Amino acid sequence: MKTKPVGPIPAGYEAIGGELAIGGRRASELVAEAGRTPLFVYSRDLLGARVADLRAALPDRIGLNFAIKANPHPDVISHMEPLVDGFDIASSGEFTMTQAAGIDPARVSFAGPGKRDDELELAIAGGVTLNCESAGEAERSLAIGQRIGKAPRIAIRVNPSFELKGSGMKMGGGAKQFGVDADKVPSLAKQVIAEGAEWRGLHIFTGSQALSADAIIETQGNVLKLAAELSDSIGTMLPKLNMGGGFGIPYFPGDEPLDLKAIGQALHGYVADLPEALTNTELCLELGRYLVGEAGVYLCRVIDRKESHGTTYLVTDGGLHHQLAASGNFGTVVRRNYPVAIASKFGAEADDVVNIVGCLCTPLDRLADQAIMPRAGVGDIVAVFCAGAYGATSSPSAFLGHGPAAEMLV
Amino acid sequence: MKTKPVGPIPAGYEAIGGELAIGGRRASELVAEAGRTPLFVYSRDLLGARVADLRAALPDRIGLNFAIKANPHPDVISHMEPLVDGFDIASSGEFTMTQAAGIDPARVSFAGPGKRDDELELAIAGGVTLNCESAGEAERSLAIGQRIGKAPRIAIRVNPSFELKGSGMKMGGGAKQFGVDADKVPSLAKQVIAEGAEWRGLHIFTGSQALSADAIIETQGNVLKLAAELSDSIGTMLPKLNMGGGFGIPYFPGDEPLDLKAIGQALHGYVADLPEALTNTELCLELGRYLVGEAGVYLCRVIDRKESHGTTYLVTDGGLHHQLAASGNFGTVVRRNYPVAIASKFGAEADDVVNIVGCLCTPLDRLADQAIMPRAGVGDIVAVFCAGAYGATSSPSAFLGHGPAAEMLV
Repeated sequence: MKTKPVGPIPAGYEAIGGELAIGGRRASELVAEAGRTPLFVYSRDLLGARVADLRAALPDRIGLNFAIKANPHPDVISHMEPLVDGFDIASSGEFTMTQAAGIDPARVSFAGPGKRDDELELAIAGGVTLNCESAGEAERSLAIGQRIGKAPRIAIRVNPSFELKGSGMKMGGGAKQFGVDADKVPSLAKQVIAEGAEWRGLHIFTGSQALSADAIIETQGNVLKLAAELSDSIGTMLPKLNMGGGFGIPYFPGDEPLDLKAIGQALHGYVADLPEALTNTELCLELGRYLVGEAGVYLCRVIDRKESHGTTYLVTDGGLHHQLAASGNFGTVVRRNYPVAIASKFGAEADDVVNIVGCLCTPLDRLADQAIMPRAGVGDIVAVFCAGAYGATSSPSAFLGHGPAAEMLV
Repeated sequence: MKTKPVGPIPAGYEAIGGELAIGGRRASELVAEAGRTPLFVYSRDLLGARVADLRAALPDRIGLNFAIKANPHPDVISHMEPLVDGFDIASSGEFTMTQAAGIDPARVSFAGPGKRDDELELAIAGGVTLNCESAGEAERSLAIGQRIGKAPRIAIRVNPSFELKGSGMKMGGGAKQFGVDADKVPSLAKQVIAEGAEWRGLHIFTGSQALSADAIIETQGNVLKLAAELSDSIGTMLPKLNMGGGFGIPYFPGDEPLDLKAIGQALHGYVADLPEALTNTELCLELGRYLVGEAGVYLCRVIDRKESHGTTYLVTDGGLHHQLAASGNFGTVVRRNYPVAIASKFGAEADDVVNIVGCLCTPLDRLADQAIMPRAGVGDIVAVFCAGAYGATSSPSAFLGHGPAAEMLV
């Protein structure tokens, strides 16, 4: 029987009594507490450990921002509040979420190529930094600021001429809907400063989900160089530079964790030898997936075990309505298996080749293809790892009327 | 400048005063009534016209079911209620929606490979027909029926050995998570009948989104032949046969509408010469996308017009959070343009090459690539057609905190 590997299970998960444990608690206990499957479980310990690893590796000079789009669950945002320095939002809806968590708007910056006027007004009134994506958006922001009598806090998002090599999604290099082409940044910056904006500096985001430390190191070097050049051209120092992120996590067979130590060493070197123009600039990295992705697990229950033409299917009550990316339908061309396990038989001998599928009436609804698992049947619990980022909110939860999954932070 | 064609705009849309009109009302008027963009507009007239076309083409002997998963908006379900014969649901959530529309559960059938016990109980208690997907599900249904003192109404979903050629999604042929392999159907049918289920017949669904009338005609012939053979093997007549659907709509450049007349003629021939075993069998087709897809339009507003390295972007307040399939991220390998137009300049001369994108911070958020459009700017309204099926509920509406689109039936 042909088999396909599953992705690597992240560090930090253990078996207790033959079950997957998250934050020291068994899967069955967590499901009982939630009262149902499917269920996303996010681990406080793993969220904290990831931030601690970053703090240990990175220079103190470089702050950490959390891009809440990766996981805007209220308990996750509140847990991250004291752990990180800043928060990146992508809509007024996300601004409301930071407000609900009591986060000072001065710590919040707002990026996104299609900010509506009402969103700009809410952000300007609240004192959020706008990562401005175009000359048109800058004009609208200045006009709104004038109208409501408050100077907008404006940084400019730069579309650099280089990209983050090997990243899952490129956001720089060539024509893009994001940011302002680098060569047009100085004149726009001078204009917004002249027209009374509170100048907040630059945002340079080049890509996401890169697993190569070398690529990230090279890109961060380019980011600092470009920021210094632009600062010189603008003729005013940059109060802040959001250096972007792009730190990836291993999802698929063969993926290796990012070499954080190497990145940290390189950034120590960069900081020790900062270009003159950036001497007084506040620096930060913007991370989403890397902070929260591996700290989350999606649990669903086996509803049926069936054979069809010699193939065994485990049909679960979960599916792509909560795990679109794991099903292979979000930004991937060739479907590969995420890290998946039988949570109720975690660590048991794996000798059963199964297709694990969701409950939806579509052949797209796949959680693991031809995976070798411990033998499981009706009632067993399946775990999909790397579910802490771009899971619950990045999936079509209204599809087929099953509704959203439960979510809990433990 | 390299350009890419957009898909064919469906019939039934006109320009009034230089604007796209839906149901005789201008886009700007509809947006004003909804109070905002993004907005899905569904046309009563076009829904009705499609059903009328089907009734005219098909033999009276073949009923029409609406698979509400394609568009479960309450007003759409209520509008379809008197127009079609039956309703197919995929979850207990969808059952609740049919109940809210006052639909007799006797007209409802429930398919889906992962029906939970609580869903089965609700359906059995309500008198819904279960399209049973496995021996295990049949056993659970019978046990629940015994417990609550009500015989479950059971049809068996068949996994046939043939598939619908050229369909966008195949649901038959080889190993599948859907239904019961054809060779195992007779023994299971005999068992459920012997154990006291109310026998409802067979459900044979072979694929979806096919544009070839020949393929559909061939498949429907195979479906009738298989149903007759299975009926003979079971030794009991089939009260009902759900023949599936698979009728596709044109989305992409070069796609041609389905030749409904040819399908109708062939079905007239099949019905005139039905196998003996099916003489008294109620027949129906199950359609979703074909009934509602072309009757819906997604309207969003241009928030920014920007240039990057010589490419023009129209950034809208819409995006893949409402139009996942149109963005190319749901079941497609190579992205092609859906039918897209500038609704506020409908029919105007097209001489501007633009990338139309959504408001999300991801390069996946594309609505039209390198499309030739009338020149549009901030405030103009973009229309994405073929938005009546698998749009609002099949997209990650919580992604980045923008929330769902408005929806209206006109």
